[in-house]
Amino acid sequence: MNRRWRAAVVAAVLGSAVSAQALAQANPNQLIADRKGAMDLQAKYLGPLVGMARGRIPFDGQIAQRNADYLAVLGQMPWDDFQPSTASSERTRAKPELYKDPAKFKKHIDSLHAEVQKLVAAARGGGADALKTAAFGVARACNACHEDFATFDFCFPTE
Amino acid sequence: MNRRWRAAVVAAVLGSAVSAQALAQANPNQLIADRKGAMDLQAKYLGPLVGMARGRIPFDGQIAQRNADYLAVLGQMPWDDFQPSTASSERTRAKPELYKDPAKFKKHIDSLHAEVQKLVAAARGGGADALKTAAFGVARACNACHEDFATFDFCFPTE
Repeated sequence: MNRRWRAAVVAAVLGSAVSAQALAQANPNQLIADRKGAMDLQAKYLGPLVGMARGRIPFDGQIAQRNADYLAVLGQMPWDDFQPSTASSERTRAKPELYKDPAKFKKHIDSLHAEVQKLVAAARGGGADALKTAAFGVARACNACHEDFATFDFCFPTE
Repeated sequence: MNRRWRAAVVAAVLGSAVSAQALAQANPNQLIADRKGAMDLQAKYLGPLVGMARGRIPFDGQIAQRNADYLAVLGQMPWDDFQPSTASSERTRAKPELYKDPAKFKKHIDSLHAEVQKLVAAARGGGADALKTAAFGVARACNACHEDFATFDFCFPTE
């Protein structure tokens, strides 16, 4: 029985629905692994778009559209895994400040969603120039949140 | 500059397009992290559906539909990260046999995609019984591939 399944069973035994309650009872290491997974995958699919925006990788409209669509879904996934139970873990590089200013965190998330929606539209439009502007917009949204709430020196190029 | 970005730049310098070629040059640890991320997230969103199927978690049509839709996207993501360069890593629990029988691996992937499509349809239909059948179908597809190609004792309940 894996950790995820155990957490679901624990939640069921306690009579709670899956969602915030189940997550609050989830193993903090699992929450961290899940959100890191979502971050890794966002980097997997944003990286090539930023590469195209910089002219370092040949523009490919099909990959651009696929990656933008993936990012629209992946961009929904990490946030409910940021639970206060994970704040003191040695496995995370999220600053504890994140849990003290949920409004600021939400503002960053909303900003990412808005930029990714622009990226999806730009990728559907099919032009390299529109994609360039939009990919850098998403990169800036990533970086802005990392600057406030991550301990590591990570940034996507934005020009 | 993070590892992903370095890999993209390396690919660009070598004049190759992002895709199989770029991935073949990517850091094996990054490939493993990315595919583990996709696996973790599939467990995150399948786990509650299996819990509903077993009656351990209250049926929630909205969560069922959302999670099924997420799984349809996540189910596309791990496979190109299974590159032979990762076979001997201590970080992976994928058996080296995986790279020796790509046809069998593809059969498992196709089976997962088919089961997830049934899950998406069942979740849209909105019934708990249809969801139950479909969630167990996806779980069986996960388990079948893990049994052939993973070294760990992981399975989702299928009844």
